[in-house]
Amino acid sequence: MNFHKKALFIVLIISLLFSMAIAENPSTLNLMPVPQQIIPKEDKHRIDENFTIDIESKSSERLHNYATRVLRRLTNRTGLFIKQGFVKPEQEIEGATMVITAPKTQKLQMRMDEEYALSINEDKILLTASTDIGAMRGLETFLQLLEADQEGYYFPQIEIQDEPRFDWRGLLIDVSRHFEPVHVIKRNLDGMAAMKMNVLHWHLCDDQGFRVESKTYPKIHEEASDGNYYTQEQIKDIIEYARDRGIRIVPEFDVPSHATSFIVAYPELGSQPNPPEKLIRTWGIKDPSLNPAKEFTYQFLDKFFGEMADLFPDNYFHIGGDENNGVAWKSNPDIQKFMNENNIPDKHALQAYFNNRVLKILTKHGKKMIGWEEILHEDMPQNIVIQAWRSKKTLEKAVKSGYQAILSRGYYIDLIKPTYKHYLNEPIENPDSLSREEKDLILGGEATMWGEFVTEETIDSRIWPRTAAIAERFWSPANIRDLDDMYRRLEMTSYRLEELGLTHRKNYPMLLRRLTRNGNITPLRNLVDVLEPVKIYRRNSLKEGGYYQYSPYSRVVDAARPDQKVAREFNNMVDEFLQDANYQTNYKKIKKHLKKWDQNHEKLQPIIASSPILKEIEPASANLEQLAKIGCKALDKLYKKHNVNWLKYQFVKGRYSIDEQKVEAAIQQASQPVAQTEIMVVSAIEKLINEAVK
Amino acid sequence: MNFHKKALFIVLIISLLFSMAIAENPSTLNLMPVPQQIIPKEDKHRIDENFTIDIESKSSERLHNYATRVLRRLTNRTGLFIKQGFVKPEQEIEGATMVITAPKTQKLQMRMDEEYALSINEDKILLTASTDIGAMRGLETFLQLLEADQEGYYFPQIEIQDEPRFDWRGLLIDVSRHFEPVHVIKRNLDGMAAMKMNVLHWHLCDDQGFRVESKTYPKIHEEASDGNYYTQEQIKDIIEYARDRGIRIVPEFDVPSHATSFIVAYPELGSQPNPPEKLIRTWGIKDPSLNPAKEFTYQFLDKFFGEMADLFPDNYFHIGGDENNGVAWKSNPDIQKFMNENNIPDKHALQAYFNNRVLKILTKHGKKMIGWEEILHEDMPQNIVIQAWRSKKTLEKAVKSGYQAILSRGYYIDLIKPTYKHYLNEPIENPDSLSREEKDLILGGEATMWGEFVTEETIDSRIWPRTAAIAERFWSPANIRDLDDMYRRLEMTSYRLEELGLTHRKNYPMLLRRLTRNGNITPLRNLVDVLEPVKIYRRNSLKEGGYYQYSPYSRVVDAARPDQKVAREFNNMVDEFLQDANYQTNYKKIKKHLKKWDQNHEKLQPIIASSPILKEIEPASANLEQLAKIGCKALDKLYKKHNVNWLKYQFVKGRYSIDEQKVEAAIQQASQPVAQTEIMVVSAIEKLINEAVK
Repeated sequence: MNFHKKALFIVLIISLLFSMAIAENPSTLNLMPVPQQIIPKEDKHRIDENFTIDIESKSSERLHNYATRVLRRLTNRTGLFIKQGFVKPEQEIEGATMVITAPKTQKLQMRMDEEYALSINEDKILLTASTDIGAMRGLETFLQLLEADQEGYYFPQIEIQDEPRFDWRGLLIDVSRHFEPVHVIKRNLDGMAAMKMNVLHWHLCDDQGFRVESKTYPKIHEEASDGNYYTQEQIKDIIEYARDRGIRIVPEFDVPSHATSFIVAYPELGSQPNPPEKLIRTWGIKDPSLNPAKEFTYQFLDKFFGEMADLFPDNYFHIGGDENNGVAWKSNPDIQKFMNENNIPDKHALQAYFNNRVLKILTKHGKKMIGWEEILHEDMPQNIVIQAWRSKKTLEKAVKSGYQAILSRGYYIDLIKPTYKHYLNEPIENPDSLSREEKDLILGGEATMWGEFVTEETIDSRIWPRTAAIAERFWSPANIRDLDDMYRRLEMTSYRLEELGLTHRKNYPMLLRRLTRNGNITPLRNLVDVLEPVKIYRRNSLKEGGYYQYSPYSRVVDAARPDQKVAREFNNMVDEFLQDANYQTNYKKIKKHLKKWDQNHEKLQPIIASSPILKEIEPASANLEQLAKIGCKALDKLYKKHNVNWLKYQFVKGRYSIDEQKVEAAIQQASQPVAQTEIMVVSAIEKLINEAVK
Repeated sequence: MNFHKKALFIVLIISLLFSMAIAENPSTLNLMPVPQQIIPKEDKHRIDENFTIDIESKSSERLHNYATRVLRRLTNRTGLFIKQGFVKPEQEIEGATMVITAPKTQKLQMRMDEEYALSINEDKILLTASTDIGAMRGLETFLQLLEADQEGYYFPQIEIQDEPRFDWRGLLIDVSRHFEPVHVIKRNLDGMAAMKMNVLHWHLCDDQGFRVESKTYPKIHEEASDGNYYTQEQIKDIIEYARDRGIRIVPEFDVPSHATSFIVAYPELGSQPNPPEKLIRTWGIKDPSLNPAKEFTYQFLDKFFGEMADLFPDNYFHIGGDENNGVAWKSNPDIQKFMNENNIPDKHALQAYFNNRVLKILTKHGKKMIGWEEILHEDMPQNIVIQAWRSKKTLEKAVKSGYQAILSRGYYIDLIKPTYKHYLNEPIENPDSLSREEKDLILGGEATMWGEFVTEETIDSRIWPRTAAIAERFWSPANIRDLDDMYRRLEMTSYRLEELGLTHRKNYPMLLRRLTRNGNITPLRNLVDVLEPVKIYRRNSLKEGGYYQYSPYSRVVDAARPDQKVAREFNNMVDEFLQDANYQTNYKKIKKHLKKWDQNHEKLQPIIASSPILKEIEPASANLEQLAKIGCKALDKLYKKHNVNWLKYQFVKGRYSIDEQKVEAAIQQASQPVAQTEIMVVSAIEKLINEAVK
């Protein structure tokens, strides 16, 4: 790590905190994703209420609407009473401030033209693209360039040339485990568009519920949704909303497993002798699977997929195909018999048989098949797309076998990992081992928002802002990997995403208010600012009895967010302190944090006493107090030893003595999850202590 | 005002702030609206994860869904992993904790049966109602009773008998001036249900836009909505959503004036020789009016109202009828001729003619007509409903003339008046001057959320929590008028409304973040906490050039909320201080506030310097500083004079000398609106000063 950069980072954070003019990194500004080419110029293009947009090409209605929304966002950010209310095809604006050229209306599909060039000069802003979607991408860059100084709002003069690195830049949203209403999907589509993402992978059914109205098989929504489904009108509305933002929608209907909701509605689809009669309310891999040995299954899928193929216009159609444990198939003698008769050696081959039948159905309905990596099998033709989720090796294997593929391994945002891990996860990990053609088969990637632990109150905080960093990985040059700069821009990006209605920031204090029964949230916030939900899938196993679909999702573990900023910054401060030979850097700031945590438990206790939902978190608060006390001692010892006359302190040396056994016990204890959360500053404090007792 | 109560109020506020156990007023608890009869008992009914609900009457599906949502709200508030996931008709729960009986499914209509009785004993909770809607009202009371202590969550043991005072308890939402998406309407319906309100009066068209899809006259949504309208599917969805919460939806189609959007779509409806071709983007009373002299108008309305009568199932149909300035009618010789030929003396009589024609149309389509008070005219029959909005006298006049009537005068929440003014506004002001029958003709009232100055980001903060107090006026006994108790309960109510997705609290810091460009919001918050938008309709005239539909609505005036709590509490503190002969009460607290405001301007200045949108508010910040400085002097003088050895202070007496001329100038200046806001603590500080210079 580079000291200079770190110092710059700290300065930037401080300037953010105190809301001073925000320093600009000349190469990346506050842009996310970073464009391919930026040539900054010295001067500023100032704007006022006379700002106007003219679109020279009149053909794309959605581009005009997009530009109108940009006007509105600009006016709401700046408070400028911009006189132009709308950007309309029938308007001709002479001498407009911003002139957009985008002759072609781009069809929504793989391999769209999303290039644009943005040129901001003293008196003119030119946005040039071949297609309307390219222009939309450019408009988002334009809005990200807005800056301010004492004289007012301005755009830096600049030349930008930009295009995406990958064609498939997706976000999966699972609406089966917990349903997400229309407006939640829409605001996330807006967030995606702001981050230049172009695929919503919509996971519409699973063991816990089916979320689409079917006119062919109405029991699907009537009996397998608890009334929580999208009508076809709503689906069309969302598809149009996405189309207007240059985002494709790829629906997923998971077969043959994760298919309980299919079977609850139509038991004759099931493999088990006693097919499930009710939706599953718990999480994990379940047995029920469609019966691949029955012709009825294919007749059903033909009709149902036919209906869905009409409803969802995208060329791609996701059939899931993951996590078939084979139990249901084994339990059915007819299926075993079918395998014997047809020389199908194992469940993998049987699934390949099933997938080939499904492929035929999809092909007939004009769709291209995509599925999770389990569909990769020697029996499958190369015209399907593989979504690698368990291993990046599968991605390589798929493209080396001639399949198109996308990567999700490393982008599982439901695992609550820190942003940088996703950010550094590279779709083309070993470029030298792949040919040009093989690289071309890597279409891009997808972040995955699995829905077990999110509700409409918390889903945004799991998607954003981390997904913005993933979007940058998919769009920007591979060598854009500076973490300090990424985190700096992510902070601005997260804030700007709020203007689209996303709730990742504002629901945090709201949830804390509920947890304190409308009390003073500060002590709770001090604690939760350094807590995160446990990682990977430990959350379910750590809860006695596990979670249900209708369990509460508004506890401390839900309010706590991934990659907590306070904890991350504290860890950086400690690293810098320890790297300073004089133990001076950040001393005061670290001390302030440690003191805050040391004193917090006492303040939190009366709040816990009046709000029983907080009782479970009390040990975490106590652990943090204990740790902070020892950490404070360690910090002071290191600092004083090097910065004051140590002799003077010798006689009170005892006060800095650290009982190593006690320390170890305290660290051990603070490392244990409490109420499915973990304290994110344990290792930093441990480092301080280790250095102090050396 | 009663001292004891005030002290109690302060204690309560403090306990709220510090999140201690919340004291209970035994008579009203935290209930809003207050039930008709409450018999509290001593003990507690404790709940845990084994809590269950059983509905004995199986007929009402919506009541089962309502109870399921109550389970979810209970689990999310308490963190209890309540084992019952759903309340379903096919379930039979032996020995359920809560047993609901509600044999009848109530049709949505005027004069519904909304009575219920709630009995909470040690081991049983019984909710008994004649109808499912009565049970829904009782379920909201039940949720409001949830309390907690160190041992866990409980309900107080209690007996409640309840029913509404008025049948029509409405909220008008205007979606023409600014469109509000479906989810905004839905979350407000949830808020209404929580407050036992039962009518959404949906103002669907006006000069600025038409918000309904029409299949009969598609130009209405195609050409007069900017693309912002509800499809008929969406309308049906919202009606069903409302019905499931016991809320009627009364649509308003405003004729003959406020009708520009009709005329833009179908110019042949217009009165003026050159009918408007574009929607109006500014606020105020406009000329365009439908042509009452043309048969086409009635043919059009017959077909269009026929379509809408089918779409909206409620018996009542609102035709507006307000603010016809007569200009358009005067401008048209044909209309003048028509008046002459038909002996129609003036515009009032002409409008009565028009209304009678419309009444015939509505009657044919099975609807009962309701309109603003302007439709009250001797030529109109008594089977219409009058909505009094300009004067309470009209209400009396209407019922004395035999019309049914509802009151909106005094409930105009867009005027940004403090809660208590609406709360004390009594629909039956002079009970002795009205007969029993006349009183019965007063159906109830409606709060009105006119849409000029709200967007989806701010509308909730204008509706809530004030409308909760209005809802109480409509539901609870007339003698429930204690302001301290109302404000105490309003604070809890406001907080609880958040769980329904309402954004009145969480959007405040979000807007402040945007205003500071993601900076430290504390200094801005200190200022805005005591600012309110100017009252009544001054906002538009105070803005040079006025507002447009597409102006920014995210400035300080928009972040500032009505009836700011900090200002209100400060004013109370000062009153108490001045009523204390020893000038001791609240001295420290008042001082703390004044010092905060005195020092705030300096802290806010760098933030203003980096965020030009705040520039306009700088004078308000400076005015507050100046005022706080003088206020501090006045406060100290009063305190020290009575509480320390004044002689000791004589030699520095000069420091408490107050230059009365300067003071007057400062107060004058601080009383002037700045950026369409006003400082809400000016008069309290003025009182301090006046007392000090006495």
